[in-house]
Amino acid sequence: MRKVLLVVQYDGTDYFGFQRQPDVPTIQSELEAAVSQLVGRETAVTGAGRTDAGAHAFGQTVTFETESPIPTARFVSALNALLPDAIGVVEAEEMPESFHPRYSAVGKLYGYRILNRELPSPFIGRYAWHVTWELDIALMRDAAEVLIGEHDFAAFSSSGSSVESTVRELWRLDVEPQGDLIEIRAEANGFLYMMVRRIVGTLTDVGRGLISVEEVRRILQSRDRMRVKTTAPPQGLSLIKVMY
Amino acid sequence: MRKVLLVVQYDGTDYFGFQRQPDVPTIQSELEAAVSQLVGRETAVTGAGRTDAGAHAFGQTVTFETESPIPTARFVSALNALLPDAIGVVEAEEMPESFHPRYSAVGKLYGYRILNRELPSPFIGRYAWHVTWELDIALMRDAAEVLIGEHDFAAFSSSGSSVESTVRELWRLDVEPQGDLIEIRAEANGFLYMMVRRIVGTLTDVGRGLISVEEVRRILQSRDRMRVKTTAPPQGLSLIKVMY
Repeated sequence: MRKVLLVVQYDGTDYFGFQRQPDVPTIQSELEAAVSQLVGRETAVTGAGRTDAGAHAFGQTVTFETESPIPTARFVSALNALLPDAIGVVEAEEMPESFHPRYSAVGKLYGYRILNRELPSPFIGRYAWHVTWELDIALMRDAAEVLIGEHDFAAFSSSGSSVESTVRELWRLDVEPQGDLIEIRAEANGFLYMMVRRIVGTLTDVGRGLISVEEVRRILQSRDRMRVKTTAPPQGLSLIKVMY
Repeated sequence: MRKVLLVVQYDGTDYFGFQRQPDVPTIQSELEAAVSQLVGRETAVTGAGRTDAGAHAFGQTVTFETESPIPTARFVSALNALLPDAIGVVEAEEMPESFHPRYSAVGKLYGYRILNRELPSPFIGRYAWHVTWELDIALMRDAAEVLIGEHDFAAFSSSGSSVESTVRELWRLDVEPQGDLIEIRAEANGFLYMMVRRIVGTLTDVGRGLISVEEVRRILQSRDRMRVKTTAPPQGLSLIKVMY
């Protein structure tokens, strides 16, 4: 058996998230259908992590095992020919049997985009949260500083998760304005379910003056999910890279 | 009666073109539904021109007449609140009764985007023609030179059109590579149905070495629709601006 790693991009707008679910289109189902058709047998695909319904990926990673004689490099063009336009394979690589896309990952980089202006955009709005409030970038950066480092991020997790530990190390949380876009980049050794969207929602609450930077520190220390008031919507979120 | 001009943007991917048609979603139908709901009575909307199914607009113009007391400037945010995310109003202006979005136009600017590389992109592919052939930009520019000026563009029209004259003046036809994107800009006093897509298809035929620049001159002079072999697909096309 050969283990093949794929680096995958997708526009998640029209999908019910990454994870396979009955009766609705998901990224995992589309990938499994394409791989299965190509190798000629039912093949399961394992991802580095779920992404939410409506969220995107520039560098999701998935693996599958196969006995197909197709050369690894050929999987890129062969799968792109079978996949819907909204999903693309950008790399294929053979990995050792011990490799696991989730457990072998040492970190992840997410991007979150805010369109901060009065007018919406039919183009950018597909990939950004449209926010019309005036945002104080300096305050958002001060709040980001509070979150960087190793912390128990329980307050920023979601009720849907049941992980053993809610401690993560956030290496980087950049807030970069570019014209009327604000690009937020979050890099950590791992993320809790909803963590990026709840962090972005909280930074935005700070930026518009709803809560103070000190309040962000108290929210973090409280480990209480109820203290986070705003969860940013999924369309601004992209999984940019999984680090191994 | 007040005549209101709107400048409209849309992602046309999921629409059957601009023009109203029974039982399918079109840009015109969505605009008419939103305007009618806002002003409280059935209101028709007239566009500067049709755009094809799957094509986009950054600056389509439309007008409607109304006796509603809503201030003109208010139509921007009020309509954006009612329209689907894929359609946005960016400007509203009151025009004299004599103004007509199509007949008053003195010219139009279209953009066409080609993604010229091996790998497809789920993001750019929505707004570009994915072309993997190597393209000779210098030859494409030579072919564009042949088409600039006042000509009978009958060869580049489509069987679907029944206009009286097929003479148009093409002011500008730029071919600009930007990384692995090629941006083509076509500006003229008017365009025949399918003209931009058939011009781009022909330039691409030149760029990949299928036909010579001289052959483009012969196609133009023939005024014979059958001589154009390639029509570029709609998703690369955007109506950028209507000039008055």
